[in-house]
Amino acid sequence: MARGVAETAAGLAAVARAFHARGWLLGTSGNLSAVVERQPLRIAMSASGVDKGELRPEQVLSIDEDARVVGRNGGKPSDESLLHIRIVKERGAGAVLHTHSVWNTILSDFFAADGGIKIEGYEMLKGLQGVRTHEHAEWLPIVENSQDMTALADTIGETLNKHNDAHGFLLRRHGLYSWGDNLAQAKRHIEILEFLLETIGRTLRIREQAI
Amino acid sequence: MARGVAETAAGLAAVARAFHARGWLLGTSGNLSAVVERQPLRIAMSASGVDKGELRPEQVLSIDEDARVVGRNGGKPSDESLLHIRIVKERGAGAVLHTHSVWNTILSDFFAADGGIKIEGYEMLKGLQGVRTHEHAEWLPIVENSQDMTALADTIGETLNKHNDAHGFLLRRHGLYSWGDNLAQAKRHIEILEFLLETIGRTLRIREQAI
Amino acid sequence: MARGVAETAAGLAAVARAFHARGWLLGTSGNLSAVVERQPLRIAMSASGVDKGELRPEQVLSIDEDARVVGRNGGKPSDESLLHIRIVKERGAGAVLHTHSVWNTILSDFFAADGGIKIEGYEMLKGLQGVRTHEHAEWLPIVENSQDMTALADTIGETLNKHNDAHGFLLRRHGLYSWGDNLAQAKRHIEILEFLLETIGRTLRIREQAI
Amino acid sequence: MARGVAETAAGLAAVARAFHARGWLLGTSGNLSAVVERQPLRIAMSASGVDKGELRPEQVLSIDEDARVVGRNGGKPSDESLLHIRIVKERGAGAVLHTHSVWNTILSDFFAADGGIKIEGYEMLKGLQGVRTHEHAEWLPIVENSQDMTALADTIGETLNKHNDAHGFLLRRHGLYSWGDNLAQAKRHIEILEFLLETIGRTLRIREQAI
Repeated sequence: MARGVAETAAGLAAVARAFHARGWLLGTSGNLSAVVERQPLRIAMSASGVDKGELRPEQVLSIDEDARVVGRNGGKPSDESLLHIRIVKERGAGAVLHTHSVWNTILSDFFAADGGIKIEGYEMLKGLQGVRTHEHAEWLPIVENSQDMTALADTIGETLNKHNDAHGFLLRRHGLYSWGDNLAQAKRHIEILEFLLETIGRTLRIREQAI
Repeated sequence: MARGVAETAAGLAAVARAFHARGWLLGTSGNLSAVVERQPLRIAMSASGVDKGELRPEQVLSIDEDARVVGRNGGKPSDESLLHIRIVKERGAGAVLHTHSVWNTILSDFFAADGGIKIEGYEMLKGLQGVRTHEHAEWLPIVENSQDMTALADTIGETLNKHNDAHGFLLRRHGLYSWGDNLAQAKRHIEILEFLLETIGRTLRIREQAI
Repeated sequence: MARGVAETAAGLAAVARAFHARGWLLGTSGNLSAVVERQPLRIAMSASGVDKGELRPEQVLSIDEDARVVGRNGGKPSDESLLHIRIVKERGAGAVLHTHSVWNTILSDFFAADGGIKIEGYEMLKGLQGVRTHEHAEWLPIVENSQDMTALADTIGETLNKHNDAHGFLLRRHGLYSWGDNLAQAKRHIEILEFLLETIGRTLRIREQAI
Repeated sequence: MARGVAETAAGLAAVARAFHARGWLLGTSGNLSAVVERQPLRIAMSASGVDKGELRPEQVLSIDEDARVVGRNGGKPSDESLLHIRIVKERGAGAVLHTHSVWNTILSDFFAADGGIKIEGYEMLKGLQGVRTHEHAEWLPIVENSQDMTALADTIGETLNKHNDAHGFLLRRHGLYSWGDNLAQAKRHIEILEFLLETIGRTLRIREQAI
């Protein structure tokens, strides 16, 4: 198992470096995880408060289903570990990624009253697992932000159940969560959703002016 | 021939990495191809669904004029192979590149009712093959998006015939296609058209406000 | 002590390179410092007028509490050394970073009449040292720009005293200052504040149009 | 002399790569030069139509005061060599850089009727050679674009004479020229002017909306 975490850590570090370069994990924000073992559940996860542009192997922790650290690495698990674990359980995800981008922050607030953002008619949507046409309508739910992680995990569990087809969700004025069967798929989903959010954000401004 | 694909793959990977860094190929979107042999037609092309930021040689396929895989590499050809093949035949192109950028997505929708975008009066236009002055007017056609690739290839064939001088075209809410005699020229054309689309998109907003 | 500066220089160079890549230190603008020794005060600081994208160890000076160069390196200390020293003294900072970004320049002017910017309700705020919830309200003071560094240092001293909880401040049409107990924390604070300023700047434009 | 060009080529290539990464030299646009010898005049200059992201030493030509190639390298000199030579003569510049950015393209058009852009009150201006305070007012002239390089060189000569203090100028819908005593200073001037143009362009949009 320790070997599994070490191997996974390199993959998480590569994604972290790439997303930090794009400005999606600035200021030690965001976090990344990947399932190493299902029975018992063991998740490799970036420790709290580390610079994602230079995530080192020893900054990747192994946690169990209660977000307790297992094994040698001594960092502190992120408060948001409970959200990662919940997503792994609800969706059977193999990897969960959470980014703080300027555009996801802005749109998570702008559309908060609607409870989510409908994204429809873009070819880019076809990159989301199971989507076969640009005519797909993706609903990206927005959940109110909170510091009570137990309550927030429950709200997210309900949201995931209510929106069975959602490939991600936004926390208001906080960030984006997405996931996948494995790390590559989770990375792909984040890139697609970030792209679409930027596209929608920039379109808003042109549309309004053109009217 | 196998050697040709292997050599070409390195060139395609370098362009893929550069464009992915600019955010033009996020989420495994877009695709890249280059002609390896004309008789019979053999095209080296990125496989479907691969991360363009880290395209590996074995993820570059050799396809024939019917988009069937030739040779060892076992990946799946992109559905859009038919579009690449059509462009190669209609234009005699040596390389075809397809990008998904935020700006090309937005403008392909914003100007859809006009059927295209007239780009005129920019020095940058001189970088397009055969253009000698900034007074050139480039018409960038916009084609409605579709998942029926056979029909779409036909529509694109007609569009290319109708607009003989066009250096590229947009698929609505989907992306940009451009090409060149070789990979370097195709790369140059994409960079120029992406630059001009961003310039036009940002100008739209300033102009409207200044009125 | 000389060894301390040399070791610190590598850390400052890495941060300088990263921030220059993001466009926050263009044209030799901005400066970076870290405390090497407290008694007597010795600060390692980037020399004036050097390219931050390629800061070399010999371009990092050791200065004393009066901003005089100590030791071998012969570059010229920045005029703004006095501001760094003042921040080190007032806040007990271990590192001080100063960036010139497009967004901090714009907002430092746009909100100048208010004397500062209130940043409230963003999860990203939790990355600032001592902040425990997104409900925190951060006041980022704006100080009028000046070329009289002695007077400016005094104004900044007063500003820091008046706003004891502030994690940074803006100089109008000039740039952002932030700091931390050590270089990693100062880097984190800059990334967070730059992120939030960009978010606020882009939100301004969408909000106005949506009304 | 040949050795001088070879040494200079590495410096030009490093600047070209950095500016291409920022999107200021896309599609083989722009060009870079540095004086190697004054008597007789010998200038190392990027050849026409080469990818600035991967400028190789053999793509840097040595040209004389009539823009004829001297020595071995066989590429074609840029049509704009005459402009570089004129700037070298009028200003005694040691290096001349020319960029095509989205923001310089937009503002060169937006302010064309004014004949230039007044840039005033920014700390960033202090990085321009000879400027001592942010209260400096820089006039950045805008010259109408043309394909007649001899005539354009004369117009630029007149513009430089009329605006003796200008550190650069814009060609309308074309790009920015700046220069310096040496390559490092020219690079610094370009970074500063590009930063200020982006700042002004983004401010335009916020200001209009806030009114």
